[in-house]
Amino acid sequence: MAMPSASYSVNLRVAIRNEVGMLGRFTSAIGSAGGDIGSLDIVEVTRPKVFRDVVIRCRDEEHAKEVVHTVEQADGVEVVSVSDRTFQAHLGGKIATLNRVPVKTRDDLSMVYTPGVARVCEAIAEDPSRAHQLTIKANTVAVVSDGTAVLGLGDIGPLAAMPVMEGKCMLFKEFGGVDAFPICLATKNPDEIVETVRLIAPAFGGINLEDISAPRCFEIEAKLREALDIPVFHDDQHGTAVVVLAALYNALRVVGKEIRDARVVVVGMGSAGVAITKLLITAGARDIVGVDKDGILDAAKMDPVRAQLAGQINPRKVGGGVAEALSGADVLIGVSAPRAVSVEAIRQMAPDRIVCAMANPIPEVLPEEIAGEARVIATGRSDYPNQINNVLCFPGLFRGVLDCHAHEINEEMKLAAAQAIAAIVGPTEMSEDYIIPSVFNRKVAPAIARAVEKAARASGAAPHRYIHRTHFGIS
Amino acid sequence: MAMPSASYSVNLRVAIRNEVGMLGRFTSAIGSAGGDIGSLDIVEVTRPKVFRDVVIRCRDEEHAKEVVHTVEQADGVEVVSVSDRTFQAHLGGKIATLNRVPVKTRDDLSMVYTPGVARVCEAIAEDPSRAHQLTIKANTVAVVSDGTAVLGLGDIGPLAAMPVMEGKCMLFKEFGGVDAFPICLATKNPDEIVETVRLIAPAFGGINLEDISAPRCFEIEAKLREALDIPVFHDDQHGTAVVVLAALYNALRVVGKEIRDARVVVVGMGSAGVAITKLLITAGARDIVGVDKDGILDAAKMDPVRAQLAGQINPRKVGGGVAEALSGADVLIGVSAPRAVSVEAIRQMAPDRIVCAMANPIPEVLPEEIAGEARVIATGRSDYPNQINNVLCFPGLFRGVLDCHAHEINEEMKLAAAQAIAAIVGPTEMSEDYIIPSVFNRKVAPAIARAVEKAARASGAAPHRYIHRTHFGIS
Repeated sequence: MAMPSASYSVNLRVAIRNEVGMLGRFTSAIGSAGGDIGSLDIVEVTRPKVFRDVVIRCRDEEHAKEVVHTVEQADGVEVVSVSDRTFQAHLGGKIATLNRVPVKTRDDLSMVYTPGVARVCEAIAEDPSRAHQLTIKANTVAVVSDGTAVLGLGDIGPLAAMPVMEGKCMLFKEFGGVDAFPICLATKNPDEIVETVRLIAPAFGGINLEDISAPRCFEIEAKLREALDIPVFHDDQHGTAVVVLAALYNALRVVGKEIRDARVVVVGMGSAGVAITKLLITAGARDIVGVDKDGILDAAKMDPVRAQLAGQINPRKVGGGVAEALSGADVLIGVSAPRAVSVEAIRQMAPDRIVCAMANPIPEVLPEEIAGEARVIATGRSDYPNQINNVLCFPGLFRGVLDCHAHEINEEMKLAAAQAIAAIVGPTEMSEDYIIPSVFNRKVAPAIARAVEKAARASGAAPHRYIHRTHFGIS
Repeated sequence: MAMPSASYSVNLRVAIRNEVGMLGRFTSAIGSAGGDIGSLDIVEVTRPKVFRDVVIRCRDEEHAKEVVHTVEQADGVEVVSVSDRTFQAHLGGKIATLNRVPVKTRDDLSMVYTPGVARVCEAIAEDPSRAHQLTIKANTVAVVSDGTAVLGLGDIGPLAAMPVMEGKCMLFKEFGGVDAFPICLATKNPDEIVETVRLIAPAFGGINLEDISAPRCFEIEAKLREALDIPVFHDDQHGTAVVVLAALYNALRVVGKEIRDARVVVVGMGSAGVAITKLLITAGARDIVGVDKDGILDAAKMDPVRAQLAGQINPRKVGGGVAEALSGADVLIGVSAPRAVSVEAIRQMAPDRIVCAMANPIPEVLPEEIAGEARVIATGRSDYPNQINNVLCFPGLFRGVLDCHAHEINEEMKLAAAQAIAAIVGPTEMSEDYIIPSVFNRKVAPAIARAVEKAARASGAAPHRYIHRTHFGIS
């Protein structure tokens, strides 16, 4: 049974009869219904009643209704209002804009708008590269989705995808200081998506593609990279790949194996699986077997992107399904579906095995079922050790990209990002239960940013030395 | 000669010899070069030198260079650094994003992002209208331009147009509390513009078209209004028209004439001239003559939009050019080009004439040349009385539109906005030199918002009574 969590919490305002023992009765009622009290504040005390606000974490919506019902039945307790904290947090949208310079006086107005702005426009018209310094292009990323593959919800469309994209924008800001704006597209046509993003690109310094279904995402990303002079990054692919590689670097260190010798099985060859496989190859892995719901990857049945990849992996020509692929494997990377891998298949892996089971919300195999069977276990969830979460990558990655005006995000930059994340966990701290930093570790994003910037310069993705112009206009 | 202004001001850091009388010599040097000192701060005092920061307003870029040069030549003064304040204000862009709810803890994360966000997505998927409450659509407007008709600069393209669009977004925020985001499009093709805006519309509660050249702007706006269920408003047309009508309401009051009896001449039948003419007709004007650079509007030579309009105006069938049109006219509205109207033509107008000469930066006829010749004179400039500025309209208009979830901005709403602006100037305050409030008058936007909301409900552009849902999710 799921644990009560903040994502299903309610705010209750109650009026409790002002009598000794009433508070205990009230909290017991909540507890008896399985609700978990988060906070309990007094709003007002009158002679007959005490008004309190209580936050109660519940398991799900149905459970929240039960808890409220139980409280309503309690003697001497009156429910004044009920609100759902998650919906409250979304009211009016989760991001807003902010003016970075004041516009309070006529002098301000004449600098940020007419007539002064005309000189800035002219400077950019003369040298378009100055848009990177003199407009929001300097620090702004578009979070682009068509809403076709949103979380575990699937194809819910652009309007319903907005809350996820706004959440993504919040994380960009909170962890990377990047201004991100959601662009949810009312089309599923890859060419229309490419064309639309191309046409709105002037305002942006980078494009983060998000929750676009495979195989369309491959084509869309490839065409946009071709069409634009700013970085285009499909986070579900490459962000996931970077964080998985970071986790794998440390997991291999913990078990004392080398990536070039490890047998790796990737279960789930969707957009994430494909990108993980490619990045592992770049990182030196030589024996990767990809498995999809139809079995071990077969080039004949695939779209061009996956068919090409199929030719680069499976050197031992293993045939069959998950069980055959995992026999003797050192590493399982699961980006497929809940419970897609059996405990028995895990037992057939090599000793000191590493299992990254990242299906959401339920992993390919539950950590508690393979406790003791695998040396290192990682999931996508926050309620087990070793959470593999994209939030570790994209804010710092784009921070670095924007800081050095990179025009692309190449393999070297992704490798550098993975190494930077891995390096946050020091050799003495590292253990089976700690291969990857917390998403709230504030050292991660700056470390990635600096590593990515360095790799961008070294690989030619950014100007070798970017000289900030300190004198503008007159000189 | 132009006056020194903030839009051409420089920040100088200087080291002045620490001696009695040196500051006077320094400021005299600036004054002798025609620079206007805005502020003068001490940064550091050492025995030999005093370091000061000084803001100097200049006439133009050339003049700024002269002033700096003069200061450099002054005995005992050393220029440490020079920077252009307008360019400084633009560094890194003028707007940013802001998170409206915290994402500091795991509980926060589980509400604004996974897993909690999924419930909000599902709620919108079930009832798409809830995007107006639960996403940034509630308060966000796209400022869309293709950069073809930017200020007086013309077709400078989307990148160079960004500083203007960012400035516009700042004004939306400052005066209307509206979150606006610049969308500068890398195309001039009207169909591509329409299609792109249609596809990115899910994130927005309204579309403000800006600085798109005529006649393309007519077609683009018409098609977008057809395609979208959110308001589409070309500010250069309708915003200008609203503010002009507001000014005209009060100017007519000052001179004691009625709009239905007034002979009005509109010089310049571009996007603004067309919209002004249409709104004046809606407001009851019956005798309007439109003049373009080819003379009085002739339906035979025009695009469909202007041809249709030509059929609705000029009831007396006046022929010729500006001079013929103005003969005996009560009102001149100029939205054309610098010095397009002669003083002699003004003299041929009816007594108690009203002149709104709004060409930028130099009006159709200079106020000082017709002082005493016209009862009321208005321009687009802040250095004469009666500045007709779009900033008076769009922030409050969109504030009202978003507050009531209007799906369009119709004629009734524009009339209501004009009346609300005009009503800010009370009958006892009103005079030849005060027919329109200042752009910094904070009463304007809320007054427009409430008037527009009322007109939207009354005309069916918004739900008659919009009921805010206070209980979300569970109920």
